[in-house]
Amino acid sequence: MSFDAAQALVAADLAAVELAMLRKMGGHYGPLADTLTGLIRSGGKRVRPTLALLAGRLHPPPQPHPLISLAAAVEALHTATLVHDDVIDGALLRRGQSTLNARWTPSSTIMAGDFFFARAAALAAETEHPRVIQLFAETLNVIVDGELRQAFTARDWGQPKQSYYDRIYGKTAALFEVATRAPALLANAPAAAEEALRAYGYHLGMAFQIVDDLLDFVADASTLGKPAGSDLQSGIITLPVYYYIQDPDRRDQLVALVDGQRHGEDVVAEVVRMIRASDAIAQTKAEALRFAEAAIASLASYADAAPRQALTAIARYVVEREF
Amino acid sequence: MSFDAAQALVAADLAAVELAMLRKMGGHYGPLADTLTGLIRSGGKRVRPTLALLAGRLHPPPQPHPLISLAAAVEALHTATLVHDDVIDGALLRRGQSTLNARWTPSSTIMAGDFFFARAAALAAETEHPRVIQLFAETLNVIVDGELRQAFTARDWGQPKQSYYDRIYGKTAALFEVATRAPALLANAPAAAEEALRAYGYHLGMAFQIVDDLLDFVADASTLGKPAGSDLQSGIITLPVYYYIQDPDRRDQLVALVDGQRHGEDVVAEVVRMIRASDAIAQTKAEALRFAEAAIASLASYADAAPRQALTAIARYVVEREF
Repeated sequence: MSFDAAQALVAADLAAVELAMLRKMGGHYGPLADTLTGLIRSGGKRVRPTLALLAGRLHPPPQPHPLISLAAAVEALHTATLVHDDVIDGALLRRGQSTLNARWTPSSTIMAGDFFFARAAALAAETEHPRVIQLFAETLNVIVDGELRQAFTARDWGQPKQSYYDRIYGKTAALFEVATRAPALLANAPAAAEEALRAYGYHLGMAFQIVDDLLDFVADASTLGKPAGSDLQSGIITLPVYYYIQDPDRRDQLVALVDGQRHGEDVVAEVVRMIRASDAIAQTKAEALRFAEAAIASLASYADAAPRQALTAIARYVVEREF
Repeated sequence: MSFDAAQALVAADLAAVELAMLRKMGGHYGPLADTLTGLIRSGGKRVRPTLALLAGRLHPPPQPHPLISLAAAVEALHTATLVHDDVIDGALLRRGQSTLNARWTPSSTIMAGDFFFARAAALAAETEHPRVIQLFAETLNVIVDGELRQAFTARDWGQPKQSYYDRIYGKTAALFEVATRAPALLANAPAAAEEALRAYGYHLGMAFQIVDDLLDFVADASTLGKPAGSDLQSGIITLPVYYYIQDPDRRDQLVALVDGQRHGEDVVAEVVRMIRASDAIAQTKAEALRFAEAAIASLASYADAAPRQALTAIARYVVEREF
């Protein structure tokens, strides 16, 4: 099953999620509503709400509305963090389009991000499910903690692998985890089901971010929609870099280049070439595959029917995106 | 009754609120926890949680914990907006101390603000009261809308007074409103009580912000902890400016100065002098007093005992802060 076929299973619900995100936009200040609406409409593949809706097929909730609100809350929170990330990273390109940050002032972008945080909070509250709301609030906390860790561990070349795991858990896996776990809560599913779906979301999210970090080195700038090696340029140590610098000679050489007198794109391009030609790429790929397999294995107790097949297909898609 | 005496009534609960805000800080990334803790400890007068706790004395909730969580959520949300405002305004001084923005990079400050949003969401969720959680989420939405309006109406010299009201509702009154209204919900108080406390918070918040905007012109920089006229320098039209420019000749003169060739502090100082010497100050004061009186009148149905006396004293304190 392709990603598109998996998503097609929940196409109607996904349209409802889109409407839930756009709802109440009319109440907002006119000149801005258009920009915020445009930002929602230009969204990516809607991976996270698709996961929530498919998890909801495994455990249908008593009413459909809370699941739609939850899926929309997840995507709104994702949008909020993307918008703030763009300010934080100073990124000018995302998905090949100029970011809000490149067109707006930083302060407008902060406010737009805050707007999506507010939407996410309101949508989560609409589920009226205390545990889901608490889980959602805790996830926001983990996400922010991940951002803070990323900023404060930049250029720390000796950090352990766990530091990378902690960061990508906050950056990506925590939201995947809540997307697939919360539907089980909404449906009052047994604890074992909640844990299985949590484990699926967690492992898939880890695989997803590892692949993203890999693509930052192996994809070309046009596929990537941003310059290759951009994380490293910000001093962020992702898994390919971690594996590369386990060899002390390579580490010394890389640190000398990145922290040295020469700056800018030519240094980064050189480092990207070095890492791309090394075994760090294969090691990173293998790790992403292990996480994806663990995600798929988490679903073992479910019947081999359309929802499980779709979640399995998405896990495969995530790690096969480019290789 | 003085503000301090009013606050002393709820001193023990206020200490619990402080602890609730600081809770879970240990789980955060070490180097950062100190800064965030410092930011909480250096907080202002805790007006908003004090109001929530006093409202809770009028309608004691079945259990004390949700009220403490609510009061802490209100203050955490206030802190979040202060931190982001400092980036948005580019402010370097607040309460006479250098802001986070002046010491940190904008991106760290965005993340610190997001951290307090996350804390606020978690604390609101702890109340486990769906209506309170929804009200809180809606308030966040109103606050962000107010920020956006402020940014998009800057330098619109012909805007109606209602535009100013809408902005200060979002900026200040909405959070005061939820601080005093939500305790009635937690206590399952009658609808009339919920409305009375909402009206108290709303009017007090409006008075509070009008006085803040007045102080921006009449207080000296040392009392203010920031340069006088700093809002006007950002093109933000507050009530003293609104009243001043109702005279078309004055408006033309002011716009020529602010939008003219000359820039910087000497222009602002000249405009501050002009407004300070005008009747706009008395008109603004009168309006703040009207809102404070309306706040006090909202409490008419309560017994003339300590909680109502304290809330009344705080309303008087808010408008008598400097005049």
